[in-house]
Amino acid sequence: MGDYRKMWESLGMDLEKHDALCAVLPELYGATYLTQDNRPDGMNYFNFVISEVHGLRIEELSRHRENGGKVLGTFCVYVPDEIINALGAIGVGLCGGSQFWIEDGEKILPRNLCPLIKALVGAKISATCPYFQSCDLLVGETTCDGKKKAWEILNDYTPVHVMDMPQMKRSKDIEKWEEEVKYFIEKLEELTGNKLTYENLLNSIKLINKKRRALKRLYDLRKYTPSPISGLDALLISQIAFYDDIERFTENVNKLCDELEERIKNLKPNNKKRVMVTGTPMAIPNWKLHYIVENLDAQIVVEETCTGTRYFEREVSEEGETIDDLISNIADRYMGINCACFTPNTGRVEDIIKYAKEYKADGVIYYNLSFCQPYSVEYKKVEEALKKENIPLILIETDYSTEDSGQIKTRVEAFLEMI
Amino acid sequence: MGDYRKMWESLGMDLEKHDALCAVLPELYGATYLTQDNRPDGMNYFNFVISEVHGLRIEELSRHRENGGKVLGTFCVYVPDEIINALGAIGVGLCGGSQFWIEDGEKILPRNLCPLIKALVGAKISATCPYFQSCDLLVGETTCDGKKKAWEILNDYTPVHVMDMPQMKRSKDIEKWEEEVKYFIEKLEELTGNKLTYENLLNSIKLINKKRRALKRLYDLRKYTPSPISGLDALLISQIAFYDDIERFTENVNKLCDELEERIKNLKPNNKKRVMVTGTPMAIPNWKLHYIVENLDAQIVVEETCTGTRYFEREVSEEGETIDDLISNIADRYMGINCACFTPNTGRVEDIIKYAKEYKADGVIYYNLSFCQPYSVEYKKVEEALKKENIPLILIETDYSTEDSGQIKTRVEAFLEMI
Ligand code: SF4
Ligand code: SF4
Ligand code: SF4
Ligand code: SF4
Repeated sequence: MGDYRKMWESLGMDLEKHDALCAVLPELYGATYLTQDNRPDGMNYFNFVISEVHGLRIEELSRHRENGGKVLGTFCVYVPDEIINALGAIGVGLCGGSQFWIEDGEKILPRNLCPLIKALVGAKISATCPYFQSCDLLVGETTCDGKKKAWEILNDYTPVHVMDMPQMKRSKDIEKWEEEVKYFIEKLEELTGNKLTYENLLNSIKLINKKRRALKRLYDLRKYTPSPISGLDALLISQIAFYDDIERFTENVNKLCDELEERIKNLKPNNKKRVMVTGTPMAIPNWKLHYIVENLDAQIVVEETCTGTRYFEREVSEEGETIDDLISNIADRYMGINCACFTPNTGRVEDIIKYAKEYKADGVIYYNLSFCQPYSVEYKKVEEALKKENIPLILIETDYSTEDSGQIKTRVEAFLEMI
Repeated sequence: MGDYRKMWESLGMDLEKHDALCAVLPELYGATYLTQDNRPDGMNYFNFVISEVHGLRIEELSRHRENGGKVLGTFCVYVPDEIINALGAIGVGLCGGSQFWIEDGEKILPRNLCPLIKALVGAKISATCPYFQSCDLLVGETTCDGKKKAWEILNDYTPVHVMDMPQMKRSKDIEKWEEEVKYFIEKLEELTGNKLTYENLLNSIKLINKKRRALKRLYDLRKYTPSPISGLDALLISQIAFYDDIERFTENVNKLCDELEERIKNLKPNNKKRVMVTGTPMAIPNWKLHYIVENLDAQIVVEETCTGTRYFEREVSEEGETIDDLISNIADRYMGINCACFTPNTGRVEDIIKYAKEYKADGVIYYNLSFCQPYSVEYKKVEEALKKENIPLILIETDYSTEDSGQIKTRVEAFLEMI
């Protein structure tokens, strides 16, 4: 990785601290991923992407910026990628998934906060994440309290544009959201110097729909018994979706799906329990729960999370005569995402039940990042609904440390025996 | 209190459990309040109100309801009392301040949640709070994550109307808030069968302005050295403001102020440190911090909280030709409140510095209810600003239990010695 040091330096990174990070990640990846049996060949592309996570892709972002393009960091699947892409900018999803950043995050944030937020703030202030360092603008949103307030602090380090999300989904809220998207367009047009047109927006919508469709195709293949791909691998692909080049990523997901379609013709039955995960996002490299579960006698077959179905379900409609029609389609599509930050959020409960059936899940793990209040309060509603449907459910509340791994393993093991 | 049992029963209360609550409160009140030296005579009214907290006032609410009036429970100082009052309803602030309700709240809410929310939910589901039992409608809002999601659960027990708060304060957000107030008016007109008019609204605005002015008068008197009233007593009055009859309350606060104006003519200097409290609300009977501080060598002279300045500062303008003007005045006044639930919330930092000077505070205690994320993240900004101004600051994070009282006392003691 010596070749990249100049680039990292020019991004203002703390090289020494970054070395420490680089020393941990490949080992973790090796132990988690490369030990899996019988992986599809198509995963090689994603192995490569990971091996170059702070290298080639950052080089691409640098080149883009040298040519006058902008890079935007986002932290929530409500921020519309279609707009960012249409205006010639590159969007990268920057939620922090590593324990490495927690310590720095806790220097300026309370400890009683979701690790995702502490990690993203830690990543920025420690100057050890080349993605953060490549961003011309961060785009925040007012989804949960922790993030809402963290933008104020991050804004001291780097420019942040905050989108005010409605907290409900009545028709007037959706209109309000559409306005907020338009306001975002204005800001982005200023930043990029480009103008949103019917053509570039439609093209961008089509491009990103293709990406979502590829992911949907992958997830549909997981519905087979046994699933032709591990939950770990599917999760990795979802995570990479947040920062990889859109076309290349789509192409490689589809290639992998071609291979999996061959695989399913010769699936050998096994006794693994089929598990669904629902809850808070798992940002890269947070593979903790999947690793524990899949090293037991189980396979994770679907994630109702923002690093899962919430990312790709529902395409933006490509119908519409005017640019306003398209913007309205975007607002609609995004307001169809069912995040616990909204009240009420009955759509999520329906989704969970629907997916549990479609993916033939034997049981559901409710994954709650510690101190994430929207999802932890919503647990009650999900619990009630799943009880009615006789779908077994277990709540796992955890952060990024490995201290509780043994305990989680024991609990999941007991759960798997029960279902 | 035997006379009230029938009334409580008719409100569907759990009498046995309520007896247990009634056994704790007077003792706590006695130990906290009646042990104070040299209290103003005007406090007798408030002693009486407390002694009848589940009695006379509830009887008044019952009578109001028997005559066709409605009672509304609210949980945030953003919910406009002027509207509720103008439509002939009685609003009562219902934030839960007692440890008694925590256990029941934790039956359906996660433990990692602010005690205020756990207590309010516990109070409802345990059917031990006659105010909750008297409400025809609860009015929630989307301020913080915990409350936002708790309404969904409370809604299974009793009807809740949720007001969607903007999370920012740009002019379009204030317009949006005005719309939300209008929507609230519609709902309330339906519920009460009354119609909002220019006259009833203006009268209501005037009435509530008078109440705010009385509280402001009381707080202004606290600016004298030493303050002619204890922080404990001032806090109690602020807490009672949330549920007492508006006119009677205003009259009694003004009477007390008349007395205090006499007192200040003969103030004897003492060496007590003047302390300001800023942060999360202290719902009745949460007197914990004030009790600890004022039993040391200090006096609390101002609370920049929702049970303090945020409740009464800024009056609603009485100017305006139309009902829409008045509604707009209301929206404006309320959006002037600086709660950490908004981003950014720079106005609060300015308020804190302003009050610290006006009230000649020697130091500031940042009071943070455990797991309240908006206020705990905002601490950083307040800390920075107060450092610049050389105003000493200490953070006290706590809940309703008394377990940490000794530790808080030690920390506050050290802080008082330092300032
Ligand atoms: S969980 Fe909610 S707030 Fe978090 S990324 Fe997903 S949609 Fe956004
Ligand atoms: S996991 Fe929860 S607390 Fe964390 S960023 Fe997402 S919504 Fe916020
Ligand atoms: S602290 Fe904020 S949310 Fe709580 S009552 Fe005050 S204004 Fe409302
Ligand atoms: S104290 Fe904080 S967490 Fe509790 S209700 Fe108020 S804003 Fe919400």
